[in-house]
Amino acid sequence: MASNRCGNWLQMTTWGESHGPAMGVVLDGCPAGIPFSEEDLQRELVRRRPGGTLYTSPRKERDHAVILSGLWEGKTTGTPLSIMIPNEDVRPEAYAPIASLLRPGHGTYTYHQKYGHFDPRGGGRASARETVCRVAAGAFAKTLLAREGIRVLAFLSQIGPITKDWEETPLETLAPLTTPEGIFCPDAALRTQMEAHLTHIMAQGDSCGGAVRFLVEGLPPGLGDPVYEKLEANLAKALMGLPASKAFEMGSGREAASMQGSQHNDLFCALSGPVTSTNHAGGTLAGISTGMPLRGEVYFKPTSSINKPQATLALDGTSHTLTLPPGSRHDPCVAIRAVPVVEAMVAWVLADAWLCQRMARG
Amino acid sequence: MASNRCGNWLQMTTWGESHGPAMGVVLDGCPAGIPFSEEDLQRELVRRRPGGTLYTSPRKERDHAVILSGLWEGKTTGTPLSIMIPNEDVRPEAYAPIASLLRPGHGTYTYHQKYGHFDPRGGGRASARETVCRVAAGAFAKTLLAREGIRVLAFLSQIGPITKDWEETPLETLAPLTTPEGIFCPDAALRTQMEAHLTHIMAQGDSCGGAVRFLVEGLPPGLGDPVYEKLEANLAKALMGLPASKAFEMGSGREAASMQGSQHNDLFCALSGPVTSTNHAGGTLAGISTGMPLRGEVYFKPTSSINKPQATLALDGTSHTLTLPPGSRHDPCVAIRAVPVVEAMVAWVLADAWLCQRMARG
Amino acid sequence: MASNRCGNWLQMTTWGESHGPAMGVVLDGCPAGIPFSEEDLQRELVRRRPGGTLYTSPRKERDHAVILSGLWEGKTTGTPLSIMIPNEDVRPEAYAPIASLLRPGHGTYTYHQKYGHFDPRGGGRASARETVCRVAAGAFAKTLLAREGIRVLAFLSQIGPITKDWEETPLETLAPLTTPEGIFCPDAALRTQMEAHLTHIMAQGDSCGGAVRFLVEGLPPGLGDPVYEKLEANLAKALMGLPASKAFEMGSGREAASMQGSQHNDLFCALSGPVTSTNHAGGTLAGISTGMPLRGEVYFKPTSSINKPQATLALDGTSHTLTLPPGSRHDPCVAIRAVPVVEAMVAWVLADAWLCQRMARG
Amino acid sequence: MASNRCGNWLQMTTWGESHGPAMGVVLDGCPAGIPFSEEDLQRELVRRRPGGTLYTSPRKERDHAVILSGLWEGKTTGTPLSIMIPNEDVRPEAYAPIASLLRPGHGTYTYHQKYGHFDPRGGGRASARETVCRVAAGAFAKTLLAREGIRVLAFLSQIGPITKDWEETPLETLAPLTTPEGIFCPDAALRTQMEAHLTHIMAQGDSCGGAVRFLVEGLPPGLGDPVYEKLEANLAKALMGLPASKAFEMGSGREAASMQGSQHNDLFCALSGPVTSTNHAGGTLAGISTGMPLRGEVYFKPTSSINKPQATLALDGTSHTLTLPPGSRHDPCVAIRAVPVVEAMVAWVLADAWLCQRMARG
Repeated sequence: MASNRCGNWLQMTTWGESHGPAMGVVLDGCPAGIPFSEEDLQRELVRRRPGGTLYTSPRKERDHAVILSGLWEGKTTGTPLSIMIPNEDVRPEAYAPIASLLRPGHGTYTYHQKYGHFDPRGGGRASARETVCRVAAGAFAKTLLAREGIRVLAFLSQIGPITKDWEETPLETLAPLTTPEGIFCPDAALRTQMEAHLTHIMAQGDSCGGAVRFLVEGLPPGLGDPVYEKLEANLAKALMGLPASKAFEMGSGREAASMQGSQHNDLFCALSGPVTSTNHAGGTLAGISTGMPLRGEVYFKPTSSINKPQATLALDGTSHTLTLPPGSRHDPCVAIRAVPVVEAMVAWVLADAWLCQRMARG
Repeated sequence: MASNRCGNWLQMTTWGESHGPAMGVVLDGCPAGIPFSEEDLQRELVRRRPGGTLYTSPRKERDHAVILSGLWEGKTTGTPLSIMIPNEDVRPEAYAPIASLLRPGHGTYTYHQKYGHFDPRGGGRASARETVCRVAAGAFAKTLLAREGIRVLAFLSQIGPITKDWEETPLETLAPLTTPEGIFCPDAALRTQMEAHLTHIMAQGDSCGGAVRFLVEGLPPGLGDPVYEKLEANLAKALMGLPASKAFEMGSGREAASMQGSQHNDLFCALSGPVTSTNHAGGTLAGISTGMPLRGEVYFKPTSSINKPQATLALDGTSHTLTLPPGSRHDPCVAIRAVPVVEAMVAWVLADAWLCQRMARG
Repeated sequence: MASNRCGNWLQMTTWGESHGPAMGVVLDGCPAGIPFSEEDLQRELVRRRPGGTLYTSPRKERDHAVILSGLWEGKTTGTPLSIMIPNEDVRPEAYAPIASLLRPGHGTYTYHQKYGHFDPRGGGRASARETVCRVAAGAFAKTLLAREGIRVLAFLSQIGPITKDWEETPLETLAPLTTPEGIFCPDAALRTQMEAHLTHIMAQGDSCGGAVRFLVEGLPPGLGDPVYEKLEANLAKALMGLPASKAFEMGSGREAASMQGSQHNDLFCALSGPVTSTNHAGGTLAGISTGMPLRGEVYFKPTSSINKPQATLALDGTSHTLTLPPGSRHDPCVAIRAVPVVEAMVAWVLADAWLCQRMARG
Repeated sequence: MASNRCGNWLQMTTWGESHGPAMGVVLDGCPAGIPFSEEDLQRELVRRRPGGTLYTSPRKERDHAVILSGLWEGKTTGTPLSIMIPNEDVRPEAYAPIASLLRPGHGTYTYHQKYGHFDPRGGGRASARETVCRVAAGAFAKTLLAREGIRVLAFLSQIGPITKDWEETPLETLAPLTTPEGIFCPDAALRTQMEAHLTHIMAQGDSCGGAVRFLVEGLPPGLGDPVYEKLEANLAKALMGLPASKAFEMGSGREAASMQGSQHNDLFCALSGPVTSTNHAGGTLAGISTGMPLRGEVYFKPTSSINKPQATLALDGTSHTLTLPPGSRHDPCVAIRAVPVVEAMVAWVLADAWLCQRMARG
């Protein structure tokens, strides 16, 4: 089994450790003849890149990706796209002092239990640095989807306790989704509160959780596969596979449990265009897209790495106090940089489903 | 791609339509030498069976499963287990009057969009009747897990708005999880409220949502595979693939977003036994089990079929009022009968992960 | 891993033991809207059925298949087709006397080594009876291919040492491929020799090997996937997975090794229609179909079961003489009944490749 | 579907074009804790490397591989091994004059038919250069197998018509399998004849076919999975997926068709050690290893590229004479350098089967 692979037909396989020489991803199943370039990649990678804002990790990475195969004269050839992103700002020695300690909230203990041998430099394979490969893959998926008029958006919907009722906010009236600080929140007032909260949390040496909403416009009906490959099931797997994610909602989400059928049912009003008058379902029925906007949300726990001393154990069972060494670096809130990653994963699932739909009829 | 399959090594493939002759599931990847019988199946199928309680569908099904292959002298042989459950109480004619109507909240529209040809009898393949196969598969998974001392439990945590803060309730002090009414809620007082709510909703001809929590005890550390086959990601896919599910949470779930790292981090206190002093994580770190109890929750929308007239369209676009014909049958709240199905899917994911763990080390 | 499954997109999963209640196959990935019926199945199953001729096993099986799911109003719905073929002429007790003996050339020893637990009745899962499921699956594949004008043929090219140089024989001038005796050999003179050889071998209580050639007409160019899913690689796997097969050749096959490039290269003469003036390649280049007739051959060892005493061991290591009990039944030459099975497997691989080709371009 | 992937549990995914910047392979499913290094890789890559002998392509490649991930302190960690081999001696411009011509025996026509867009530089992805990745993957597989005492050998058994009856030659008495000329033939007299034949063929500007036999010692019984994942079926797929392969045989191979059961059946003589007195089966029964030496053969067509003018068509259908430009390079006989590639693919299939065997019993 390839546990480093994602997708049914369109498949990405990622590799690389946080402080190894490079990260990479191989995209297979790409149709031929699609214009694609390193510029298309870079546009997305820049959005996820650390080091650019007050509120993200100080690790400095240009995240300059190279495409090593699969293109000829600027278009895909149907053979694998191999993409490599060198790791530039690596400081493996920074982790030596804590290599033998179990880091609370991290995979140190579980990787040791599973494999008995673990690359401890910055979390190794378990580092969120792996998500750079997802964004690279997502750039290709977005390229495929854009040709069909399908647009995938994500934004910060919550940081710590700072959030609002997003259902009432028409998205098109909101501010554009790029900001110098990288806080991709379309509500300017809320963004100010989020920044204040982050400043406060960072001053304490602590971290906080957050949430990211996604929205897809232009998706045709009919995508997704019953019974075990439902669109929402694949989105859930893709997003619950992100580091630190703890909850996933589709459409009405958790609130659906408190509703009645006569409230929740979206009534059909047309056979094309907006087909239902409401969209509690969030764009799917029975695992297949309705053509209504797809929407959902993913919730992240607070960053496990904090600048506060924590009681823990060493691998040999002795008690210690863990204090992160000066060279170690982390984000105060993983949700911030997760926005382009959520977009990438949603785009990947949808591009895969869009291709698979070619198989549905004789 | 087999979209009717679930599992990485241990794979179930299900087939059958709600009002066809039978439902079935083929289990492949089963290790040889495991004692298993039709009685083991029946014990689980009875828990999901409709027709037994005030609060579930009046469809009468014995759900008598037969095992057609894969056993010799009462033990698995390593070849596929083929399990068939005949459909007995089928009334395909009951659906003829509404075969051309789009049923709100149902897959009629999306199946038509995807396939252009649809078996409309009781929802065909999209019917929750398909879950009988999941329970059959889960019975085998539970048999595998029980041999290792792993116990999978689920219970009704919410019906409509009726719920409580489950974190504070020590599970072992609660009532046993079988009741004549099939309301698998371990809190007797809450169960009474749930029943009252159901009675009220049914009297209105309406339906309501609900939620199911799962809890796994005895799981060893090390199960689950990074990066795209994380244990929580596979649980999310398995449970978000259930009919009507709208949200999935692992451990602290949605609440994690409001917390700080210093609160959320579970501190390590021992290398075996309960390894952390708290369990906000819900039993996994970085996608791999910690050995702490695994816990999560899945939320269901209200049953889409209601006994109230609803405005809708026919397949030809004309407007109609949909009134369910007398012979059609449904549950007032899908969460009730979902309890054994959630257990089955969780068990399936864990049995698969348990087998896959054999591969982790050289 | 599902080792009882075959196909990339179009997937069959088979189940059943030779002397269990039934054999079955689940077809997933079938496009919707394809007319298909039990009659389509029966037409193919009859060709493989034992008991009909002088030269095949006396086991009497009607091989009456039922389709349990996946059809509505005579057409596929995109959901799995579940096909079951009851075993009628089972005599499990016939194998009791030899259940503990290692049967030369059979899987008894290897299944015991692998699984430690084995259904010995007539070879259990290792029986050639399993191929009835392949023929059922192939009937669906042929239905798909026939809609595209693709015709898959196979015939007996060799029985024991009786064969000829088939390259020089224009297939269209040969006799039709059905005969009362089930010897699907298009050369009447050779068929007479084959029958004489079989009569001779059977009189000795012995068995003989044989070979089957396949030929596909109407295949479009472009099918098959580089690098590890080449058309010839998938054909090889499908046919080397048949019971008793020992060799596979594509086009010029083994003779290619003795040739020079200037002889073997098929020169291009047109961009469509017959594109090369010769066809040493046998219809593929670099793993992808050229549009020229596809042709290859598969060679079978002699049936392992013979009516002669053989020295062997019991499972406990003691020496014995194995004499097949009177009720046991087998074919004198597996190649005879392999003809429709080879057709089925070739059709399955091609139908899968034909569907997958929908994905090749953006 | 990932058509650039090979393996069930242990999976390699390869990428790269002949004249792109690099070739690469990602190995997933590797157990943790296995000592492995770039030296282990290099030892195998050197054996396949072109440019070293009189009888292979003059392309000069150091084939210096780097391992970019998956190792820590010299041992695997269970995360993907990413291996990259830069292309150094690339001359893409050499192919410009013939980029629009259909090369006889090559994939130009079929890739164009499939994808509509093709990297023509030296065959692009269809080049035998891709096999460098297979050898890199095989180096890891051999490392796994060697720990279990399993040894995989291959050798040149035929070049053009030059061959012998290998069955009668006890392998252990033969010369070692390395020679300065890279002709891995263990029979010195035959090797001399092969070299003379090659010299003759090269003088003509022509090419010739050949064959490679493989032999595996030390394989335990029980490996391989019925029904569609038989060991011989997976070997056939792996070897029929090599460029230019036209036939595959297992054990007695094609000769089995002419034999009788009483001759072919290998009689059991012991429960361990050499379990049968003969080995016509070639080391498997019913798709599962017997523990007897595994043996088989793969046959290759003559190299398609020859230094003789050939009539052909351009992509626009016009007639041309194809003469390979001076800068183009090829082997006179692909079988020569195929020896380490066959070893690599056999090792890969076996290492995968060896891992999968962990799953067979409860």
